[in-house]
Amino acid sequence: MLNSNSLIEQIRTFFEPNSVAIVGASKKVDKAGHVIFKNFVENKRTGLFKGEIYPVNPHEETILGYKCYPSVNKLPVDEVELVVIVVPAPTVPNVMRDAREKHARAVIIISSGFGEVGNFELENEVKRVAYEGGIRVLGPNCLGVYDPSTGVDTLFLPVTKMLISGEEVIATPRPKEGKIAVITQSGAFGVAALDYLAGKQLGISKFVSFGNRVDLDESDLLHYFLNDDKTKVILMYLESIRDGKRFVEIASRVTRIKPIVALKSGKTKAGAKAALSHTASIAGSDEVYNAAFFKSGIIRAQNMYEFFNIAKALAMQPPAKGRNICIITDAGGPGIMVADECELRGLKVESISEEGQKVLENMKDRGEIPKFASISNPIDLTGSVTADMLVKVTEIVYNDIGVDGIILLGLHHVPGLQEDYVDRIASITQGRKKPIVACDIGETEMALYIRGKFEKFGIPAYASPEDAAYSMSALCHYGEYLRQYEKEDDTIA
Amino acid sequence: MLNSNSLIEQIRTFFEPNSVAIVGASKKVDKAGHVIFKNFVENKRTGLFKGEIYPVNPHEETILGYKCYPSVNKLPVDEVELVVIVVPAPTVPNVMRDAREKHARAVIIISSGFGEVGNFELENEVKRVAYEGGIRVLGPNCLGVYDPSTGVDTLFLPVTKMLISGEEVIATPRPKEGKIAVITQSGAFGVAALDYLAGKQLGISKFVSFGNRVDLDESDLLHYFLNDDKTKVILMYLESIRDGKRFVEIASRVTRIKPIVALKSGKTKAGAKAALSHTASIAGSDEVYNAAFFKSGIIRAQNMYEFFNIAKALAMQPPAKGRNICIITDAGGPGIMVADECELRGLKVESISEEGQKVLENMKDRGEIPKFASISNPIDLTGSVTADMLVKVTEIVYNDIGVDGIILLGLHHVPGLQEDYVDRIASITQGRKKPIVACDIGETEMALYIRGKFEKFGIPAYASPEDAAYSMSALCHYGEYLRQYEKEDDTIA
Repeated sequence: MLNSNSLIEQIRTFFEPNSVAIVGASKKVDKAGHVIFKNFVENKRTGLFKGEIYPVNPHEETILGYKCYPSVNKLPVDEVELVVIVVPAPTVPNVMRDAREKHARAVIIISSGFGEVGNFELENEVKRVAYEGGIRVLGPNCLGVYDPSTGVDTLFLPVTKMLISGEEVIATPRPKEGKIAVITQSGAFGVAALDYLAGKQLGISKFVSFGNRVDLDESDLLHYFLNDDKTKVILMYLESIRDGKRFVEIASRVTRIKPIVALKSGKTKAGAKAALSHTASIAGSDEVYNAAFFKSGIIRAQNMYEFFNIAKALAMQPPAKGRNICIITDAGGPGIMVADECELRGLKVESISEEGQKVLENMKDRGEIPKFASISNPIDLTGSVTADMLVKVTEIVYNDIGVDGIILLGLHHVPGLQEDYVDRIASITQGRKKPIVACDIGETEMALYIRGKFEKFGIPAYASPEDAAYSMSALCHYGEYLRQYEKEDDTIA
Repeated sequence: MLNSNSLIEQIRTFFEPNSVAIVGASKKVDKAGHVIFKNFVENKRTGLFKGEIYPVNPHEETILGYKCYPSVNKLPVDEVELVVIVVPAPTVPNVMRDAREKHARAVIIISSGFGEVGNFELENEVKRVAYEGGIRVLGPNCLGVYDPSTGVDTLFLPVTKMLISGEEVIATPRPKEGKIAVITQSGAFGVAALDYLAGKQLGISKFVSFGNRVDLDESDLLHYFLNDDKTKVILMYLESIRDGKRFVEIASRVTRIKPIVALKSGKTKAGAKAALSHTASIAGSDEVYNAAFFKSGIIRAQNMYEFFNIAKALAMQPPAKGRNICIITDAGGPGIMVADECELRGLKVESISEEGQKVLENMKDRGEIPKFASISNPIDLTGSVTADMLVKVTEIVYNDIGVDGIILLGLHHVPGLQEDYVDRIASITQGRKKPIVACDIGETEMALYIRGKFEKFGIPAYASPEDAAYSMSALCHYGEYLRQYEKEDDTIA
């Protein structure tokens, strides 16, 4: 228990250091050490980063107005909590010895040129120095940390990039603050994920790229995020797992409190070969990973879109209490597509309760919904739908005790559907314990507007029927997983 | 042969009518008959639509400056080629009799209220009148036609929609002219497809929504598009097939000339039930459809994204001559994800020729690519990549005779990769017979810019590794399908 608490405290230093030294800080704009140091300087200027910052570079007097130091052990203080290292691989062990002199607690080694290129001896030396000094390490060969709430940003990729034409464009955006933690073994996939999440207006709690993991690994980070109140969902990109037994043990504890979504690449022979040359990861049999994920209650995404879309659903909506899903639509074809995908994912698409059906029949009789609407499941209000109809029917179905979740397809193309239906649906469902997800298809103004509007209210909105269906499926399966332990707890009680 | 040619001529009338009457044309902006008539008026004004247009409505003198006629048989001409009908279902047979008097050749019945709501008697009457008059019919219960090259646009959904705030936003855009024909049984999915394609800057040759298909069906339309020079790829959304034998016979002829991609919904029990209540389609066993598609050489998409992404690849790139795919990347993780998806789709991810490998080794020795680049497959140039490296390596691999296609992942986040690599890759590959597809991940400025730039050059660019891989897979499998007939033809010769 002490160990586990101290691990949390140790990892916390990476996100909330009182002081940070950037070794390899530089004035040259195309150097990684420039970008990282500037991130800290900018975030300190705006008041986001609250710690002290020290550039370390023997060849400079000052950088961006900060006095520069020749080495970490020459810093004007007795202690520096976090040291970020961006110098060539062979010099890293010495930098770490300097860091030890200044009682550093955490080191991020951005530099590459270690195990991933066969340089295991150097990697072992780093490991030894860290262990002897009681220093926790992220990396080497990683991007380190981005924390939108504390301003720690060790990403050496600047937010913008200059085109040859001289135009400056957003290239590696940092997402806003949110509920999703991102853990990644691949730095490249990590920044791609940030770019995706930022573009989709999804926020993150923290981002960690751990690279070669000489010390801290995926299990340690899971343990940390279990205890991080800002994190509601954990996204994890992996090419391998270091210690399977420990991973399953920790992940199982995490998933009983918050969901983990994993994207594990290297699942085929071709992929495993590629993973081996990428991070020297021995991917191992995919069945073993499937079994480990299943045992841990981890939701495994089969591709990139599933990874992000499922996380969005879990971040915004409660898990479902069963598998009975009702589809409400104004578009027949897309309604069928959702029904297909629901069944393929093991959900039930059955009629709502008899009472509910009677209420809908009466609405037909009173002309409140179209005479030819289908009140089976999917409930198809047809192209004659209005906001009033969609809202009233959703309210009835949402309150039907036989329905565990709703997939709402309000395709905006039909003439009579005004956009205020979104606000009204939100006010019915907000703060309640039954999940709802939305879908509107299209890539132009109105579709983007509607989906954005839904998500401002915390209703995940998808661009394809299948996205909506498998995301709901994750809410159902995660709910089922949790209930299994509720029962267990009941039995024990 | 005569029949088949005359069928083509008959269907051509829907896309290139000399004259069109809109029955149910209206001054009221919220009426379908207003939107459709206005589409024609606008397209005639800009010179795009070249035929005569006649509004038909007994209650109006003029509409949008055009003299209005009380019924089709009162038109001031002896003949009207195309009649678009937007009046309540029960009056449709009479309108068709009027149309027959004016020797109409083609009728689009937008109106609903026929077989889809159990009104089979009325539907049969329509069928009888059409047959007796030698009139070809699209619909009823459909959207009809949109042809960007002739200005025929019978979509009753206006391009823009008014928000409650009074703001006008794009809601149902019409894509520009391009090479993809869209055939759809579901109108709602049809407009969703237009919205998607327009937003993704993909052009279409023609769009046809056939609804209840009392006359013209999916097979007739396939036959037409086989002979339509503007169409390079056919996209088809289906809930059922009317005449399986004829479908397979015609589709098989089409796919030997141009690819067909089908999205068939109602594949599960839940989906089939939904399809039944949507278009009264008896979906039948999904295995039967799979067999029919396989026999016809149709590529079946498993979800909406596959549907569009595969079409894009087929519209822009030649089919592959084999299954050996080389992945070139600057991002290890995403490279593995592509390798995985390639293998899952039956492609081979093997090393390039020994000669090619030697050339790359020499480049390493000369420092032209990073010392630690992986020259296996995926070829990983790492985050140190530059445009020069990526272009040179792509050129070598593209010319390797063992490589049948290239998937290029130039993730833009790395600092040294300037965007002119796109132009340079295009100049190497343009007009040649080996396919290449690109991937860059991200949803902000630079990613959108890079993907857009690739597609201007005719290189399909994808937002996820898996999208790129399965799209290349479609190019490989379609190439294999075509070769099977080349061989057959050789044998016969």
